Amino acid sequence: MRDAYHAELDSIGEGLVDMANLTGSAMGRATSALLDADLALAESVIGTHGRIEDLQRDLEDRAIAVLARQQPVATDLRLVVTSLRMSADLERCSVLAQHVAKVARLRHPRPAVPQDLRSTILEMSQLAQRLMAQAADVLVTHDVDAALRMEQDDDRIDELHRGIFQHLLDDRWHHGVETAVDVTLLGRYYERFADHAVSLARRVVYLVTGEQADFIATLPATTT
Amino acid sequence: MRDAYHAELDSIGEGLVDMANLTGSAMGRATSALLDADLALAESVIGTHGRIEDLQRDLEDRAIAVLARQQPVATDLRLVVTSLRMSADLERCSVLAQHVAKVARLRHPRPAVPQDLRSTILEMSQLAQRLMAQAADVLVTHDVDAALRMEQDDDRIDELHRGIFQHLLDDRWHHGVETAVDVTLLGRYYERFADHAVSLARRVVYLVTGEQADFIATLPATTT
Repeated sequence: MRDAYHAELDSIGEGLVDMANLTGSAMGRATSALLDADLALAESVIGTHGRIEDLQRDLEDRAIAVLARQQPVATDLRLVVTSLRMSADLERCSVLAQHVAKVARLRHPRPAVPQDLRSTILEMSQLAQRLMAQAADVLVTHDVDAALRMEQDDDRIDELHRGIFQHLLDDRWHHGVETAVDVTLLGRYYERFADHAVSLARRVVYLVTGEQADFIATLPATTT
Repeated sequence: MRDAYHAELDSIGEGLVDMANLTGSAMGRATSALLDADLALAESVIGTHGRIEDLQRDLEDRAIAVLARQQPVATDLRLVVTSLRMSADLERCSVLAQHVAKVARLRHPRPAVPQDLRSTILEMSQLAQRLMAQAADVLVTHDVDAALRMEQDDDRIDELHRGIFQHLLDDRWHHGVETAVDVTLLGRYYERFADHAVSLARRVVYLVTGEQADFIATLPATTT
């Protein structure tokens, strides 16, 4: 009975890692679609969102079933509740990857990103994917130091995001308002994606260190 | 024992309504700060976010404590788990109100919104506040019809949001790129705020009708 229970908890963790890998990959492909003005690739990213929604629903169902059947307490309870929050973060990341793909589709066959911002967008996308890959690792390893190191990449994303605004507001900007609108939204999509990845890692830190949920440790191990 | 338990569940619901009222009010005041270029009001909105974060933490602590101590099943379990998702939605809405206030602060003493978009921004803000007030009502009444009626206001928000883009991309746009960037982000903040309000009401519908969580009804009433 206990073994089946822990297998259920493990499978929830594996579901989160699958979702993280899929959303990271979706953002990478969405960015390729964006920079290459590749309509088919954009459509395929938009099409995979349903799969991530299915994974989320499946994960939520399993988490709620574990709560109902096994009535976990203490650390296990925190783990299951946190996994519900994480799956919501990941579903949101998939929506953000979709948004990037939709900008590519909207402007096709023209590229939405002007030459002078391609390297910034590419770097934001790479950092966002790296953060998601690191978040997936942290989900597996529970490595608090690795989680904390992610803040540096997140700072770099914020710096690139500010750089986009400076570039847009530069007097030499000559790509017009439509491109400014696209780039403004794109910058926000990558920044939010990265925020969610960092938030995933922070939740693992809370689980491991017990910060912000100390009161649970004060509860009796069983309350039946 | 059962009475104390249901009092705990009720107090979680009341906490959500308090958060909804506070975030709706924050968005209203943020919009006033934006349209009136009122720096003090903008600062006050930014300052109240901490209170909403405290409410969220308090609500999460209580929800997790109820899960640990009372080990609810079936409808009660769904209620508690859903309340955790709702409090996350509401905390996000408070961040969005803050973002609006920060645009007001950034452009002060100039108004960030040009005259020809003031009425659109005002209507988006009013609809967003109304949706949040309706979501708070639905949290109390569990009125599925009222929840479904909210979709109309949400459609109107989406229409106004599209109208902003059309206006920005009109050849007669003469407010420059900086204002275009501000208005692009503002439109997105109101639209996301409204999405979260609608999502709150949808979660109540799922709780009441049991859709998307049918399997819980198939579980035995107690599993110990």
